[in-house]
Amino acid sequence: MTEIKDKSIQIYLDELASKAPTPGGGSAAALLGAQSAALTSMVCNLTIGKPKYAEVETEMQVLLSKSESLRVTLTAMIKADVDVFSQLMAAYGLAKESDQEKVARSQQIQTVLREATQIPLNCAKACAEAIVLSQEAADKGSLNVISDAGVAVMSAYAGLKSAALNVYINAASLKDRPFAEEKLAELAVILKGADIKAEEIYQLVKNKL
Amino acid sequence: MTEIKDKSIQIYLDELASKAPTPGGGSAAALLGAQSAALTSMVCNLTIGKPKYAEVETEMQVLLSKSESLRVTLTAMIKADVDVFSQLMAAYGLAKESDQEKVARSQQIQTVLREATQIPLNCAKACAEAIVLSQEAADKGSLNVISDAGVAVMSAYAGLKSAALNVYINAASLKDRPFAEEKLAELAVILKGADIKAEEIYQLVKNKL
Repeated sequence: MTEIKDKSIQIYLDELASKAPTPGGGSAAALLGAQSAALTSMVCNLTIGKPKYAEVETEMQVLLSKSESLRVTLTAMIKADVDVFSQLMAAYGLAKESDQEKVARSQQIQTVLREATQIPLNCAKACAEAIVLSQEAADKGSLNVISDAGVAVMSAYAGLKSAALNVYINAASLKDRPFAEEKLAELAVILKGADIKAEEIYQLVKNKL
Repeated sequence: MTEIKDKSIQIYLDELASKAPTPGGGSAAALLGAQSAALTSMVCNLTIGKPKYAEVETEMQVLLSKSESLRVTLTAMIKADVDVFSQLMAAYGLAKESDQEKVARSQQIQTVLREATQIPLNCAKACAEAIVLSQEAADKGSLNVISDAGVAVMSAYAGLKSAALNVYINAASLKDRPFAEEKLAELAVILKGADIKAEEIYQLVKNKL
């Protein structure tokens, strides 16, 4: 089966809109993050080599290396969400006639739910990192492409808030409450102040236009 | 040349990240809006036909028709941004040796700049409409897919704020100040309260999880 990232944007949007259960919001969240990282890379690529920005050349090189690495991570998460959703559907579809089957099914569901909580949490973390990278692009990037740093921060922020929703859903179904609470606490740390930070970076960009 | 929407997501992200001037933030803004509309359509498609949601069946059908139409509009805007950027680069590249050439070049730049202001303004309007549609999906959609309405609102909000940056940039270069001020005033109306509304819809979704 063709991976989502290798499908055209039109087909991705058609499949997202359709009644097929995947791709859904989890993949969309990862794409929002990947798009943010790509835009930060664009700002770097259009700043590096410009005599006017020679002073920040090394920092832009380092930033580019981070944003490209993060883009690979987030692009892979588009697929990870689909995979874990399929596993979850398979677990819910297990036989539940005998008591033994019921127990096995429930255990399998809970095992996959842990993964289905961790994956969007990882996506939220990566999107938060994309916000940090967009800030450096907004701070030091070429003024000719500074608006792209503003689009980068908004895209990452949307990805973060979107991924958070999938953590909430799956954590709510977990029977292992200490694990669920731990994951929700990790998410709360990631989310804390993200709205203010995103708005600050956006205003920084707007003031430079 | 292949339209962006017909390229794979991987290639789109690679080109976005590259030093090529297009695609850039304007296309990314349109994609954010198109993704939002697609997610609202997904909520509709997974609510329609479900006996539990028979009461909202007709409203979901109407919402789906609106979100699919908006998705077409926003998908087309991915290309519109690239096209107007190319026209702008061509205008800046016109000869400017003689006084006559200078005047002709300046006039052409100003003509294209009007278009380059209107196009992201249209994108901002369409993204604001996508926020409104996501609200209805969040209000009435199946609880099984309600988180997708939350991703829809965040994606549209990011698209709106991103498109706004491109209006600011191009309006700033316009010599026709009354036209520029009119467009900025239109944008201000669209933006007014959008942050609060987006957060309200997000919280509505979160409270339903």
